[in-house]
Amino acid sequence: MHLPFDGAKLDRLMEEAGADLVLAFTRHNIRYLCGGYFYHFHERFQAIAEAQYTPLLGVPRAQPERAFLVGGSGERGQAKDQKLWVPEIIPSERHPAAAARDAARAIRKRGLERGTIALELDFLPASAMDVLRRELPGARFVEALHFLEELRAIKRPGELDILRRITQTDAEAIQAAFRSAKPGATTRQIAARIEQEMTGQGVHFLWVFTAAGPAMLRAPSEKVWAEGEVLHLDAGGEQAGYLTDVCRMGCRGEPSPLARELFDACLATQDKVRAAIRPGALCGAIHDLGCETLKDAGHGGHGQFLIHGMGLVSHEQPRFGPGARRPLEAGMVISIETDIRHPEVGYVKIEDTVAVTPSGCEGLGDLGRGQWAVAAA
Amino acid sequence: MHLPFDGAKLDRLMEEAGADLVLAFTRHNIRYLCGGYFYHFHERFQAIAEAQYTPLLGVPRAQPERAFLVGGSGERGQAKDQKLWVPEIIPSERHPAAAARDAARAIRKRGLERGTIALELDFLPASAMDVLRRELPGARFVEALHFLEELRAIKRPGELDILRRITQTDAEAIQAAFRSAKPGATTRQIAARIEQEMTGQGVHFLWVFTAAGPAMLRAPSEKVWAEGEVLHLDAGGEQAGYLTDVCRMGCRGEPSPLARELFDACLATQDKVRAAIRPGALCGAIHDLGCETLKDAGHGGHGQFLIHGMGLVSHEQPRFGPGARRPLEAGMVISIETDIRHPEVGYVKIEDTVAVTPSGCEGLGDLGRGQWAVAAA
Repeated sequence: MHLPFDGAKLDRLMEEAGADLVLAFTRHNIRYLCGGYFYHFHERFQAIAEAQYTPLLGVPRAQPERAFLVGGSGERGQAKDQKLWVPEIIPSERHPAAAARDAARAIRKRGLERGTIALELDFLPASAMDVLRRELPGARFVEALHFLEELRAIKRPGELDILRRITQTDAEAIQAAFRSAKPGATTRQIAARIEQEMTGQGVHFLWVFTAAGPAMLRAPSEKVWAEGEVLHLDAGGEQAGYLTDVCRMGCRGEPSPLARELFDACLATQDKVRAAIRPGALCGAIHDLGCETLKDAGHGGHGQFLIHGMGLVSHEQPRFGPGARRPLEAGMVISIETDIRHPEVGYVKIEDTVAVTPSGCEGLGDLGRGQWAVAAA
Repeated sequence: MHLPFDGAKLDRLMEEAGADLVLAFTRHNIRYLCGGYFYHFHERFQAIAEAQYTPLLGVPRAQPERAFLVGGSGERGQAKDQKLWVPEIIPSERHPAAAARDAARAIRKRGLERGTIALELDFLPASAMDVLRRELPGARFVEALHFLEELRAIKRPGELDILRRITQTDAEAIQAAFRSAKPGATTRQIAARIEQEMTGQGVHFLWVFTAAGPAMLRAPSEKVWAEGEVLHLDAGGEQAGYLTDVCRMGCRGEPSPLARELFDACLATQDKVRAAIRPGALCGAIHDLGCETLKDAGHGGHGQFLIHGMGLVSHEQPRFGPGARRPLEAGMVISIETDIRHPEVGYVKIEDTVAVTPSGCEGLGDLGRGQWAVAAA
């Protein structure tokens, strides 16, 4: 059976977790396991009528031909059009309890009612969980998060293509927003421009963190980007569920010597970390290198270095941190962030996304990373 | 204490439900109770790191001065900038179990650990609910959905302003998409145009249902809108959490006599129902009127009439259906939908939003409802 994910890896991970069936609920994991498919009507909102759209995808270990999707009654057409591999689609009400009852029935039909069922307990609604416990009293329930995250850790070429394209779009949208920000523009207006630019390129806007000058309010607001002030634009969007997250700096007028010093310290940290990323490098060592490089730059008290995997979830595998023993592998995608929050200058930050390659790493969307963007006059 | 909602009404509804404290989790209810406030970073995506952003807003009955919001550590600045009324903000991890522990602590601090706590059980993650049950063994848990929905049922003038503006934007976006659809355009391209138009007007795109010609696939796809085919565009978006939902018809070339007949039947049903909407009219009677008018038009087997309240949730109060005894009140907002799915013509549908006024109803975004839109040549 042809699957859009690594079926053998899923079987192995489920075996390690002791799971007989995974029952996925989150948009990111359903999308991943369904090869990009998700009911379009509920891609961007879930609440409807008295509850919410509750898709439940059941995949028995080593038996994908017995998989099922409890979904909305209106999604059969799209599933057929997109050639969804899941053999059984079970139309249900858009209600967690009803969907859980239908899933429990499908699990019993497959003889797995006394098996171990892996769930996303931090997402699945309490009412659905209560129904599953009641309807499947002989089942054991375990957490699916870690093995599903592991399944997604190495990106395939098609995933890398999407991430490459949307990260470039994000970087371009940020530059366009800087360039078009006329005197008097508020951070809310500048953020809106990013949304328009992303949308025009088919990337669905998600957020902008922004702060102008020494005020540390990191949200779009009525604050005007004033002369001499630095501005950071840290924007995210998505396409087919894949996330982009880029931060670039601008200044209205010339940045002060101190602002330049902070920017250079961030950039040097990013560069040093990027140079160390390659297959086999340990996550813990990469993390320490970033922290130490930033600290050595002399603004330690105001600085923060952060590094995390990226994909369908912001901050996914690989996980970094002191002592993390995991070696990097080609196909992993990583977000690297360095910021310095200085009371006189404001919030200076650079964030890049890179993909680990066989020999090092490839920057995705590097546009504008080494320069201060200039605002419209 | 000045609250952005009707505090006396909430107290009364909570008293009827026997609730001592409401602990809201959904974006729509937190937004409503917080007067529009929601942490901007997580407005459009929740999953992060090993779990999800889990805001929990606690409001004790008749004691709003003891309310609290368990939220992200990064949202204090925005809360202050937007003058959020909630007196205590409790920064937490972005994890349901951690947020639930922090909420349980806040509930104990208020002496309500043996009280009745109203929750949104169809949304709150199972892991958060498990923590609340464990941490508050003396508490009783009840469902908050119905009284929070009731609290939102009558829209205030500011809410009506938003709904009026965004429904007009939706109707304009649909007309622009029809007008710009050149020969060879796919339904996916036409849908993308709606997204761009909405975004340009500050409305966040959510979905487009669309179907070209007799094929009943109701999702954007590679299907080309061909000569002579009808096309419906049923699009939704949101601003500040408020939803818009409009459907208009177009045809590439002249609609056939049968297509015109179906369209006229839909329009006549919509018109007749709208003429009957006024304060005091019973929801059940309105529902029956729509169903009977459509049936009398002679395409009963292919037709469907649907009517529902609208606001921060699609399909909220007032609820319609056979025998519904609730009388309409000024300030309610209603979506009215009539469709006929005919095997020879395709999917013909009109959907309008109206607000109940003291003397009848006001159409929001009526642009294009009585005509067939024409495609670009």
